[in-house]
Amino acid sequence: MIGRADAQELDAVDPLASWRDEFVIPDPELIYLDGNSLGRTPKRTVAALHRVIDEWAGDLISSWWEHDWLDLALTVGDELAPLLGAGPGEVAVHESTTVGIFQQVNVALDLTGDLGRQKVVAIADGDFPTDRYVAEGIARLRDVGVRRGLDDLTGVDVVLRSLADYRTAELADLASETERARRAGAVTVWDLSHAAGVLDLPGAGVDLAVGCTYKFLNGGPGAPAFVYVSERIHDRVTQPIWGWFAQRDQFAMDRPFDPRPGVGRMLNGTPPVFGLTAAREGIRLSIEAGIDRIAEKTRSLTGFGIDLADQFGLENVTPRDASRRGGHVAIRHAAASRLHDELAARKVIIDRRDPDILRFGMSPLTTRYVDVFDAFTALDDLTA
Amino acid sequence: MIGRADAQELDAVDPLASWRDEFVIPDPELIYLDGNSLGRTPKRTVAALHRVIDEWAGDLISSWWEHDWLDLALTVGDELAPLLGAGPGEVAVHESTTVGIFQQVNVALDLTGDLGRQKVVAIADGDFPTDRYVAEGIARLRDVGVRRGLDDLTGVDVVLRSLADYRTAELADLASETERARRAGAVTVWDLSHAAGVLDLPGAGVDLAVGCTYKFLNGGPGAPAFVYVSERIHDRVTQPIWGWFAQRDQFAMDRPFDPRPGVGRMLNGTPPVFGLTAAREGIRLSIEAGIDRIAEKTRSLTGFGIDLADQFGLENVTPRDASRRGGHVAIRHAAASRLHDELAARKVIIDRRDPDILRFGMSPLTTRYVDVFDAFTALDDLTA
Repeated sequence: MIGRADAQELDAVDPLASWRDEFVIPDPELIYLDGNSLGRTPKRTVAALHRVIDEWAGDLISSWWEHDWLDLALTVGDELAPLLGAGPGEVAVHESTTVGIFQQVNVALDLTGDLGRQKVVAIADGDFPTDRYVAEGIARLRDVGVRRGLDDLTGVDVVLRSLADYRTAELADLASETERARRAGAVTVWDLSHAAGVLDLPGAGVDLAVGCTYKFLNGGPGAPAFVYVSERIHDRVTQPIWGWFAQRDQFAMDRPFDPRPGVGRMLNGTPPVFGLTAAREGIRLSIEAGIDRIAEKTRSLTGFGIDLADQFGLENVTPRDASRRGGHVAIRHAAASRLHDELAARKVIIDRRDPDILRFGMSPLTTRYVDVFDAFTALDDLTA
Repeated sequence: MIGRADAQELDAVDPLASWRDEFVIPDPELIYLDGNSLGRTPKRTVAALHRVIDEWAGDLISSWWEHDWLDLALTVGDELAPLLGAGPGEVAVHESTTVGIFQQVNVALDLTGDLGRQKVVAIADGDFPTDRYVAEGIARLRDVGVRRGLDDLTGVDVVLRSLADYRTAELADLASETERARRAGAVTVWDLSHAAGVLDLPGAGVDLAVGCTYKFLNGGPGAPAFVYVSERIHDRVTQPIWGWFAQRDQFAMDRPFDPRPGVGRMLNGTPPVFGLTAAREGIRLSIEAGIDRIAEKTRSLTGFGIDLADQFGLENVTPRDASRRGGHVAIRHAAASRLHDELAARKVIIDRRDPDILRFGMSPLTTRYVDVFDAFTALDDLTA
């Protein structure tokens, strides 16, 4: 029988416990288990945003050079790269996740060359709506076919799939699924939006990926996405939205489009400086705290949640194998919508997805074991 | 002979003079005539950004509903609409200008229907690089032809053009050029990036436009762009990048893509809340100051600058007809690059464009006549 003292004991020996102090937490009584939708606010981000506002007001146009704003999408990308096992010049942070997926699927379609037939993009049947919508939009734009379901990849040219299922947190096997698609002749675009923890994209043979900084990376509301392009294929990558920030010599304005080397060719327009500044601080926190420790705590917190779900007789739909799950615990309950609201009334903030899934997000830098204990206890109380 | 006292007199009777107090101006000695590249920082924007950071930290995920973040791209679009003569539901503020141009050109291509032949996009020969690049990228993506030059529109299906020339500030005639294209069977996408002042897009028969909020609208570095879609064509518009924010019932996640009504169908991913918050305050200032008065002061400031250029024997390349020019004065000089730097050393910040253009941007809410006088006097001093 797990008790609150057990949770307190786990917090006492948690090597990441002190990182919670790096965040603004105005209401210490609020239990926030929705960092997988919108991460909390790092104190350094507040300072960095205040500073960048002052730079804008004081240094005006010169800020683009003096404060490295011109290259910010790539500078922040390079800072993020180690979280993906990637190297410099392989990651850019820019635009929305939707735009990033659109770019990457188009890149992947072109990488497959001229096949003399209609190409096919495959997506998982229950994948996140944006992934499905983007694929269908491209199908309409470019006369491409869309297949739903990933079991049989025969005749598939591009696979677009989420690493972590946004409902159950189930993780796909990055390396073996990338390889399975490659053997079928397909390029895979990985959507890392709900993924947290250690990734080794080069080691897994990944060509193209896109992800999100406002969830587990605590990058702020609507923070820009990241795109990863393996350096193995840089020279073969042509993305669809050609803007002046992708141009090799950006201010020589009379030349034809000549994409810059590396992932810089994925850039489009003028970078969103506030969004990038906030994303950068969140990324830096994860780097400093150590991605190995973050991944370990994620597995531990979610395991603790699953144990509590078992104890309270709740229907857990998250994988029990820690290596096969992302950063949240999913509970299925017919009254999910009502329970979500009743928990909120008790100051327990979780997420839900229709029709019947409750998501307990366990952002490892801000979530304590007592938060998990109190949240599941509250749910038990409401359902008992 | 124009003297500094004349400039002071004009400032004394300027009905917009007091709006300068609405901006953060840390160095009152700096003469900033580059608001057409990056506008100054409104004081209200600083307060609004600080507030939205607090909302994030305090209200976390609930902010998306409590603070209207979910609809922010459309709410801010509706606030901007009067600047374009547009109505509610016709303007959205989101993504970069590059992405907006990409969306609009694709929309325009589809509006022309199935022609049974390769379609053609026409762009002006010396238009801003991003406009040319986007058109060429789409040509590659969709098997579309690109024609450079707008004199003969025979066989052209889509015209992409800037309203204001980014070098000379020359304005195209919005209504007659839209109509000329229409008679040739072409849909025009207007890029309003360097345009300032009163516009009446519906009155001019414009279908599609895109523009920028970080220049004359003082929206902050990398602030999101705006897109305009005339309500006349809403039902026929399908944009290329399908994301969950364009979906009619966004959180019913199992449905096929069904675009929301109005300009909302142009949305893609999660909106950048910091960028939108800053853009909103800049937009509100222009609305409050009055766009008619802003347009009038723009014409007056640029006219004053042209008179000074004449007085000092400088080569003005801006149209002398006030109704045919945007918000900056362009001077041609073989030593433009050196003069730009020497002016900066004297705390006169202007812009330049290779090979020989100096741009004096006259952001009407923050620029005084004495600033224009002092800047041209400094240039005269350096070139005399």
